[in-house]
Amino acid sequence: MIMTAFFHYKSTKRLRLLAENPFDLTNKDTLTPERIKKLVAGSCGFKLLFGTERVDENILKGLEDLAQEAKVIEKMKKMQSGEVMNQIIGFKSENRAVLHTAVRDFFDNPNHSKETKLAKAEVDKLQNFIEEIDRENKFEEMIVVGIGGSELGSRANYLALKHIRKEGRHVHFVSNVDPDDAVQAINSSDLKKCLVVVVSKSGTTLETATNEYILRNKFKEAGLNPNDHFISVTGKGSFMDDPGIYRNVFYIWDWVGGRFSCSSMVGAVMIAFTFGFDVYMEFLRGANAMDKAALNPDMYKNLPLMAALLAVWNHNFLGYPTYAIVPYSQALQKIPAHVQQVEMESNGKGIDRHGHRLDFQSCPIVWGSAATNAQHSFFQLLHQGTEIVPIEFIAFKESCYKQDIEYKGTTSQEKLISNLFAQCLAFASGKKSDHPNKTFLGNRPSHIILGKSLSPYSLGVLVAFFEHKTAFQGFIWDINSFDQEGVQLGKVLAAKFQKLFSEKRSGEIKEPYPLGEAFLDILN
Amino acid sequence: MIMTAFFHYKSTKRLRLLAENPFDLTNKDTLTPERIKKLVAGSCGFKLLFGTERVDENILKGLEDLAQEAKVIEKMKKMQSGEVMNQIIGFKSENRAVLHTAVRDFFDNPNHSKETKLAKAEVDKLQNFIEEIDRENKFEEMIVVGIGGSELGSRANYLALKHIRKEGRHVHFVSNVDPDDAVQAINSSDLKKCLVVVVSKSGTTLETATNEYILRNKFKEAGLNPNDHFISVTGKGSFMDDPGIYRNVFYIWDWVGGRFSCSSMVGAVMIAFTFGFDVYMEFLRGANAMDKAALNPDMYKNLPLMAALLAVWNHNFLGYPTYAIVPYSQALQKIPAHVQQVEMESNGKGIDRHGHRLDFQSCPIVWGSAATNAQHSFFQLLHQGTEIVPIEFIAFKESCYKQDIEYKGTTSQEKLISNLFAQCLAFASGKKSDHPNKTFLGNRPSHIILGKSLSPYSLGVLVAFFEHKTAFQGFIWDINSFDQEGVQLGKVLAAKFQKLFSEKRSGEIKEPYPLGEAFLDILN
Repeated sequence: MIMTAFFHYKSTKRLRLLAENPFDLTNKDTLTPERIKKLVAGSCGFKLLFGTERVDENILKGLEDLAQEAKVIEKMKKMQSGEVMNQIIGFKSENRAVLHTAVRDFFDNPNHSKETKLAKAEVDKLQNFIEEIDRENKFEEMIVVGIGGSELGSRANYLALKHIRKEGRHVHFVSNVDPDDAVQAINSSDLKKCLVVVVSKSGTTLETATNEYILRNKFKEAGLNPNDHFISVTGKGSFMDDPGIYRNVFYIWDWVGGRFSCSSMVGAVMIAFTFGFDVYMEFLRGANAMDKAALNPDMYKNLPLMAALLAVWNHNFLGYPTYAIVPYSQALQKIPAHVQQVEMESNGKGIDRHGHRLDFQSCPIVWGSAATNAQHSFFQLLHQGTEIVPIEFIAFKESCYKQDIEYKGTTSQEKLISNLFAQCLAFASGKKSDHPNKTFLGNRPSHIILGKSLSPYSLGVLVAFFEHKTAFQGFIWDINSFDQEGVQLGKVLAAKFQKLFSEKRSGEIKEPYPLGEAFLDILN
Repeated sequence: MIMTAFFHYKSTKRLRLLAENPFDLTNKDTLTPERIKKLVAGSCGFKLLFGTERVDENILKGLEDLAQEAKVIEKMKKMQSGEVMNQIIGFKSENRAVLHTAVRDFFDNPNHSKETKLAKAEVDKLQNFIEEIDRENKFEEMIVVGIGGSELGSRANYLALKHIRKEGRHVHFVSNVDPDDAVQAINSSDLKKCLVVVVSKSGTTLETATNEYILRNKFKEAGLNPNDHFISVTGKGSFMDDPGIYRNVFYIWDWVGGRFSCSSMVGAVMIAFTFGFDVYMEFLRGANAMDKAALNPDMYKNLPLMAALLAVWNHNFLGYPTYAIVPYSQALQKIPAHVQQVEMESNGKGIDRHGHRLDFQSCPIVWGSAATNAQHSFFQLLHQGTEIVPIEFIAFKESCYKQDIEYKGTTSQEKLISNLFAQCLAFASGKKSDHPNKTFLGNRPSHIILGKSLSPYSLGVLVAFFEHKTAFQGFIWDINSFDQEGVQLGKVLAAKFQKLFSEKRSGEIKEPYPLGEAFLDILN
C-alpha cells in the first residue's frame, strides 16, 4: 500500500534508530571547541558551522548514505542539464525542464545548452537597454509590478544591495491587489522619472494586470505616455509580449519557475538599473559558482546539500515541524520571506513524484526575521517554550556600509556577532537552575551560514544556496518541487466571488452561489 | 507528579474526546450558508466569522466550559484592576501588576486607579509637547530608536495609519544593533528637521544605547545639539530620565510590559507627532472599548476570548503546532510580526504560574504575512502540504485610501475580498479529484476578523484584541504571560563574547573562554 521511497531507504531506517539518541548538546564534555571547529562545511566563500546541531559521526554518516540512496547528486546533475524534472510520473503534469541554473551558466564550464543561449541573448539585450537608459539620463525611479516569484526575491535582493545603489536611484514594489499598495507607490514617485517593470510569465496574473491598469491610468492622467515608461518581463507570445505598448520586452521561459527566477530577467532589470549592469553580472557569477558547488558529492564542500540533510534530520527524524531563518544582518531582512516562498511553495506537497500520498512530513513551516530584533521578539519561546525550533542563522563578518563606531569596548558589528554566537551556544547548552523560570533545557539545534561580506557575488551565492537546498530536500523526499497545483482551487473560487460582486452591482445574479452570498451578506 | 491545571479540567477531558471527531468542513450538507451566517461573534465594530473552524455546538459548549473552569473572565478583571498577575507563585519573580489597560482607561467607566492618573498626566504632557512642536514648525521627521516591544508595535501602527499621515511628516525606525540599520536611517534623514525618540524602559537596552550613541555623534558632526532633538521614553529614575540631555522625558512604568506598550508613551509620541494628538486619543478610545469588551463573559460578544478559545482548540486539541496570521490589507503588513512578538514572548513558556513544568504545549509558532501576496508564496503548502496550519485572516470592507478603479468587472478591493472569502472556503471544503495533484483534502480551519475600515479607532480595537487574545490563552494555560526570563541567558553569553572581542583587541585575554574563541577563530 505505501509506495513512497523516502521512509523505506536503508539509511532512513538507520537514522530513525539514531534519532532515539541524538547528540547531547548540553554536555560540556562533548560540546567542545574542537567540535565547533571541526563541524564546518564550506562552499564559495561561505562556511556552515554545524557543531550546534544534534549530530555525531554516525548520524552524519547516515545522512551521507541517505544522500546517496536518494541519488541527490545525480538528480541535481539531471536538473542542471535540462532533463524533465517538473512532472508527476504517470499523470498529466507540467512536464518541464527546471533550468534556472541556465540563466547564469556563462562562466566556468558552461553547459552550452540552447537555454543558456536564449538567456545570454536577454542579458545582452539588457546591457544595451541599461546603456540606453543611462544615456537618456531621464529615469531615476523604478516601480516593479509583480507578485510572488515575480517580486519577493527581487525585493529581498534590492534591500540586500541597497548600500551600493547608484546615486539617486530607487525602487518601489507594487504587488498586492489591495488598491492601497499601488496608491502608496504612486504617491511617493515622480512618474515622469519613473520606469515601470511589469513582471508576469503568463501575462495574465490578476494582481499584476490590475495594478498595471491602475498605473497606466495614472501615467495618462499625468499627461505621460505609458508606452514610453513601461517594460515587460514575460513569456514569449503572452499578452504582455507586445512592443506596441512596452518600450522593451524581456523574456522568461517555462523552464524557470517563478520562485527560482530572481536571477533571470525577472530580477535582472531591477538590479541592472539600480546597481549597474556589472553588479548583475557579479550576482550571476556568484549564483553560478554555487550551482557548480551543488554538484559536488562531498557534502562538506556542498553547502546546500549539507544544509538540506541537516534540515531533514531535524524535521523528519527529530520531528520538529518548523524551522526559523534568522539573519544577523539588517540588509537580509527580506531573505526569510523569500526563502519561505522558495521552500514552502516548492516542497509544500502531499504526494510524491509518482502520485502516491506521502506517509511522512514534507516541507516544514519556514519563518523568521532579522536579529538582533528577533531576540527581543520571539526568542523567548525559542529558549523556553514547549515547541523546539531549529534555527538557520546567517551572518557576515563585515557590515555593509562599513560605518561603525566603538561604544563600551566593541563596535556595533562586534556586538552583533557576539549576540549571534551567544544565542547559538545558549540554545545548544541551556542552563540548569533551581529556579524553574531560570532553567533552560538546551538541546535546541541551530547552525550558522557565515560569509565575509554581503556583495553582489555573495548574494548570488546565497540565492543559489537556498534554491539548491530546497531542490535537495525535494530530491530526498522524492517529490516534485517545481509545480504549484495547490494555488488553483483558490483562484477558481475567487473568480466565482468576483462574478458575484459584479453581478450584484448589475442587480442580476445569473449563477446563484448561496455559500458565497452568505459571506457577502455578513460583509454588508 | 503532574500538577498543572489545564489538562485536568473536566472540560479539557471532554474536549479531548470531542477532538477525535471534529466538525467535517468538507461535507457540503453541513458547511451551509446558514452555518456561515450563524457562527459569527462581534465586538467594537469587528466580526469574527468562524463557520470555517472545525467546531460544532458541543465543541463550542466545551470551550465555553473551559473558559469558565479556567476562570478567564475573573483573571481578566483582576488584571485590569491591578492585581499582581506577573508572578511565579512560590518563587522569586517580578511580582508586578499588568496594567497596559490603565494607560487608556480615560473613557467609559474608568477604574480611577493611581496608574490611570499617572498615565493621564503623561498624555497631558504629550498634548502640550505636540502643540509646542507644531508651533515651532521646525520638525518634519522622526527617528524612533528602540527594539522589540519598544519598536514592533509602533512600526506596525505607523504603517497601518500611513494614509492619514500629516502632510510631510514621516518616521524612520532604528532598532537593530547591526550598524547598517542606523546608517540607513541617517542617510535618508535631514537631521536638522529631525526629532529622535529613544525608547527603553530600563534605559540600558544595549541596542538602543548603542544606536543613540551613533545618532548623537551624527548630530554633533552636523553641528546640531542633540539635546534639542532627543526625547526619551523611559522609566522614572533610569539613566534616560535626564532632562539635561533630552528636551523632553516621557514616562512608562514596570506595570506596562514592552510588548503591551504600544498604546503607552512608547507608541504615543510617534502617533501624536505623525498623525496628530486627536488620532492618538481615538486610537486609545478604540483600545479601551476592546478592554471593556474583554470583560464580557459571553464569548459571542468577547472577540479576544472567542479567538483564544478557537486557538486553543486548534493547538491543544487538534494538535496543530503553528498558526498563520494573514491580513488581507497591505496597511496591516507588520501586524503579523507584532502579534508574533505579543503571543510568542508572552506565552512561549515551559512552566505554569506555580513553577511546574508544563505537560502540554503552550504557545504555537505564530507567523504569516499580508495577502494576496501570501497566496503566491506559502499558500501552496497550506493547501496541499503535510502540515495543517490554522489561519487567522483579518480584513476590512473598505480600503484605506479609497482610491480604487473597476477593472474586468470588479474594483481592486472587491478582488481582494473575493480572494479572502475564496481561500477561506477552499481551505475548508477542499476538492476531490482522480488526479492526485489536483486533490485538496480540505478540513484546514480558518476564521476571519472583519472590520469596516482601518481607522485610528479600529486600529486601537485590533491592538487590544491581540493583547487580550494572548492574555486569555495564558489564563487558560495557567502560565505567566507577562515576564520574559528566556532572554536572559543569551544576554549573559553575549556579554562574554563582547568581552572577548574587546580583550582580543587589547591583546590580553584575562578570562579564557575556549568555546567562544573557537567561534572567533572560524570568523577570522
